[in-house]
Amino acid sequence: MYIEKINGPEDVKKLNIEEMTALAEEMRHALLKRASIHGGHFGPNFGMVEAIIALHYVFESPKDKMVFDVSHQTYPHKMLTGRKDAYLYEEHYDDVTGYSCPQESEHDHFTVGHTSTSVSLACGLAKARDLRGESANVIAIIGDGSLSGGEALEGMDFAAELDSNMIIVVNDNDMSIAENHGGLYSNLKLLRETNGQAECNLFKAMGLDYVYVDHGNDLRELIGAFKQVKDSKKPVVVHINTLKGKGYKPAEEHKEEWHWHLPFDIETGKSHFPEVEDYSSVTCEYLIEKMKKDPTVVTITSGTPTILGFTQEKRKQAGRQFVDVGIAEETAVALASGIAKGGGKPVYGVYSSFIQRTYDQISQDLCIDGNPATIVVYTGSVFGMTDVTHLGLQDIPMLSNIPGLVYLAPTTKEEYLSMLDWSVEQKEMPVAIKLPGGDMISDGREVTKDWSQLNTYEVTEKGSKIALIGLGTFYSLALQTAEMLEKKGIHATVINPYYITGLDKGLLEKLKADHDTVVTLEDGILNGGFGEKIARFYGSSDMKVYNYGLKKEFLDRYDVNEVLKENHLTAEQIVNDVL
Amino acid sequence: MYIEKINGPEDVKKLNIEEMTALAEEMRHALLKRASIHGGHFGPNFGMVEAIIALHYVFESPKDKMVFDVSHQTYPHKMLTGRKDAYLYEEHYDDVTGYSCPQESEHDHFTVGHTSTSVSLACGLAKARDLRGESANVIAIIGDGSLSGGEALEGMDFAAELDSNMIIVVNDNDMSIAENHGGLYSNLKLLRETNGQAECNLFKAMGLDYVYVDHGNDLRELIGAFKQVKDSKKPVVVHINTLKGKGYKPAEEHKEEWHWHLPFDIETGKSHFPEVEDYSSVTCEYLIEKMKKDPTVVTITSGTPTILGFTQEKRKQAGRQFVDVGIAEETAVALASGIAKGGGKPVYGVYSSFIQRTYDQISQDLCIDGNPATIVVYTGSVFGMTDVTHLGLQDIPMLSNIPGLVYLAPTTKEEYLSMLDWSVEQKEMPVAIKLPGGDMISDGREVTKDWSQLNTYEVTEKGSKIALIGLGTFYSLALQTAEMLEKKGIHATVINPYYITGLDKGLLEKLKADHDTVVTLEDGILNGGFGEKIARFYGSSDMKVYNYGLKKEFLDRYDVNEVLKENHLTAEQIVNDVL
Repeated sequence: MYIEKINGPEDVKKLNIEEMTALAEEMRHALLKRASIHGGHFGPNFGMVEAIIALHYVFESPKDKMVFDVSHQTYPHKMLTGRKDAYLYEEHYDDVTGYSCPQESEHDHFTVGHTSTSVSLACGLAKARDLRGESANVIAIIGDGSLSGGEALEGMDFAAELDSNMIIVVNDNDMSIAENHGGLYSNLKLLRETNGQAECNLFKAMGLDYVYVDHGNDLRELIGAFKQVKDSKKPVVVHINTLKGKGYKPAEEHKEEWHWHLPFDIETGKSHFPEVEDYSSVTCEYLIEKMKKDPTVVTITSGTPTILGFTQEKRKQAGRQFVDVGIAEETAVALASGIAKGGGKPVYGVYSSFIQRTYDQISQDLCIDGNPATIVVYTGSVFGMTDVTHLGLQDIPMLSNIPGLVYLAPTTKEEYLSMLDWSVEQKEMPVAIKLPGGDMISDGREVTKDWSQLNTYEVTEKGSKIALIGLGTFYSLALQTAEMLEKKGIHATVINPYYITGLDKGLLEKLKADHDTVVTLEDGILNGGFGEKIARFYGSSDMKVYNYGLKKEFLDRYDVNEVLKENHLTAEQIVNDVL
Repeated sequence: MYIEKINGPEDVKKLNIEEMTALAEEMRHALLKRASIHGGHFGPNFGMVEAIIALHYVFESPKDKMVFDVSHQTYPHKMLTGRKDAYLYEEHYDDVTGYSCPQESEHDHFTVGHTSTSVSLACGLAKARDLRGESANVIAIIGDGSLSGGEALEGMDFAAELDSNMIIVVNDNDMSIAENHGGLYSNLKLLRETNGQAECNLFKAMGLDYVYVDHGNDLRELIGAFKQVKDSKKPVVVHINTLKGKGYKPAEEHKEEWHWHLPFDIETGKSHFPEVEDYSSVTCEYLIEKMKKDPTVVTITSGTPTILGFTQEKRKQAGRQFVDVGIAEETAVALASGIAKGGGKPVYGVYSSFIQRTYDQISQDLCIDGNPATIVVYTGSVFGMTDVTHLGLQDIPMLSNIPGLVYLAPTTKEEYLSMLDWSVEQKEMPVAIKLPGGDMISDGREVTKDWSQLNTYEVTEKGSKIALIGLGTFYSLALQTAEMLEKKGIHATVINPYYITGLDKGLLEKLKADHDTVVTLEDGILNGGFGEKIARFYGSSDMKVYNYGLKKEFLDRYDVNEVLKENHLTAEQIVNDVL
């Protein structure tokens, strides 16, 4: 086994082509086993094994600096930079994060998880190098759909002006998470078909030099190209044509399903987890029906169609009423605004973590004009993704303080579908809906509330002394807390506020009559959140206000129960605090 | 006079080329007079007079929809769509906003003020048209540096997939606000030099059809090109080569100074306002000195160098230590993060309104890794720009709730320079500094505070009963309020908190001993802001908290004194409320 002897890039340099080829096979074997047991990003890593071996063979990391875009394709890089055990031995699988991580290794330079950032970040390293009078190669590795993101295109445009060493490796596997979208991919196709010779060349049009590698999984070709650009005094793109998922047939054939994968059976490729009804599937079901009836309804994604439940089959069914803008969140929001302005009914579904790309588009492009677009925010919850780069804990502070936006928090499937249908049909305002975290709750209750009566909270249990306002996910925690208070002889009021973006001042005022304490519970960072607005409302009164939610911090790969405890987000702790 | 007879686009269509040429002259004459008295965007409008006449001659607005990027070049469009009086008669100058405005006219479709949005917004109109089975032309008009913005590049990439009518007019005047930056402009140059014939073509590489107009101020050529693309069934770019500022010599020769201009003398081109020392000039002075001493300090702008005080002359002086990334705010933040990571000392200066483009870059690209970059936020104040698209009222809620960022609020020049110097030199954390609004206060006080002692507020006046915490701009309002309280027999405590992003819990706790009321004052939207955190802190105590700041709303062209009154931001009102 070669992989056993690789403790750093210097060990890669000792190998010849045949040995590196064998190493690549070993790495794929280890990646396959780990993925089948542990899950994780699959296709991006399998396609990049040879390129990453070649990069470490040719360049001198960490003096030469590699910046991986999204960094979900860094598994091979980690295997070659002293972290192989985390890929070879099951007991060490969790020793590494799924992304590049400066705390883990001097070979990683940024904690990266969102797409399209590598070129701009790498430009920074290159500029610092130049200012300090040093010399080293800076290499941004981008691809897999990331090129269409605004920051990546900005970065390439800027890189051309650097006038010093900057190498951009474009991993062209003809895929994003789903299929690629955007006109630029037709240019990549043209370049692939002409062996990089076509005159019309996006990279050259942006002022960059250009090298093409037709066999992006061939070590000899890759090494040749990297040697050619090493120590380049100008910014240069190396466009490599790779096969996503290479080496595992199901992944080669079904690239979208195998971009990221749950643990699975290696023989059959089948996941160990059954499909269940969730907010993705009910959204899709609702929208498919809605779109059939109304040709002006349109579903929008920015490169992550399955979060909306839209598999390839469902997308086909939706036809031109399903739009994937590619990885281009800013454009997705502006597009939704334009469609709404033009009399269409757009629904944009997006992860809480990725909507962070669109603060300005939501404020400027959408809310100033009040165009009636709908945005559905997924996994904005402490029960969502736990990687520091994919947290869903900031959407309340980010979205809810933008003027003109109505941000809603359902607690059940029924509330959600009622809100969604109202939002799609109304013509007055932009609406975002924050889906609750954890398992979807469906109580079968018919929801008849008129959502256009903004900021009307619902008292679901009338009590006195203590009022518990449980927003979204944490409405159920409010119920649990009320139950526990009941045992202590206090019949508390429970409120489902629904509206994140406004106060039900009448109701809050009335609470003063027979309550002395108000408790707020929200699923996100407290700073700038929902509870603080309640605290402000009662600031000059005698009402005691307790705000529960999460501390302002970047959590990483956390244990959700520990985090809940740390933040006093258990019924027991709340009861203790308040009494 | 032809202009007198133009009450809508239909009147433009009645003219022949000679008459339109005369009309263009009349329009320029009116624009010049208005600008000299009223100020406003200059160069962008002067360069686009013929193109906008030609657009209205060829297309049928409002059925055909024109979406102007930034929309600071819509003055000629407004003149031709029923709003000429606002450009002809001084008493009507303020009847129109400086940007496109759907409330003003059915010929305007979006309220636009930030750059690079037109293509994505127009794609939305086009998509809605297609879903509704309608037919009309949708025309995005972009240029003047906006192309380098991520949203514009995303939008063009996406537009290529539309497969229906979409016309993108690229106004290429070889300028941004300052000179253009980015590799793509070398491609525009190549296209200009080859009369649009060069094979390597950015727009074609993005999958778009392409038409070139070499004389972008020639009505005949423009009309020919627009007729050629009218009713196109595919997305197409019309690249027009225009002269920014055309028709006024000082503006043609000094394009940067004449992008936007204060009222001026037409004969000499001299502004009526003297130059004074302000936060721009003191920042520049500080940085020029600092950069001389330390080659790793670098100043970054995203297309607005003069906000940092860096005129062309100063930029030359700074050499490679001044970086203009072009209009590309996202890249500016990522670049700063990368430079900081690489051991450089970056200072990025940006308007409060434009930093809205970078929520995710500040969170992901900068703060997760805690790289020590400095961001200086300009005109984030109710005393700043008053157009709805350029408000500086959201930076506190937007920035201050992002984990890991230290956001500081100086109240004087001396505090600012002390903070800036500390931030540039420290190696621990990303820091943003919110410059105060209104006239710069310089009190000559030597500031010796150690800013690395995070979240340490300063009691500047020790009193009792009432504590006034005045953040940034409104520290002086706290002082005024204290004075007024003094007259009522209350010697209030006054606190300068400096730190927007954290509470001085020790100090706040101590206040409980001899205060029953805390008043917070902040220059921005209250929701998600500074005061609410104080309200949360005291929520379960007996302390009464009053938060002063601005309501969550989109103000537009407001009278600052009225807004202050409406929000109870006068010392008199505060004293009345609190007593």
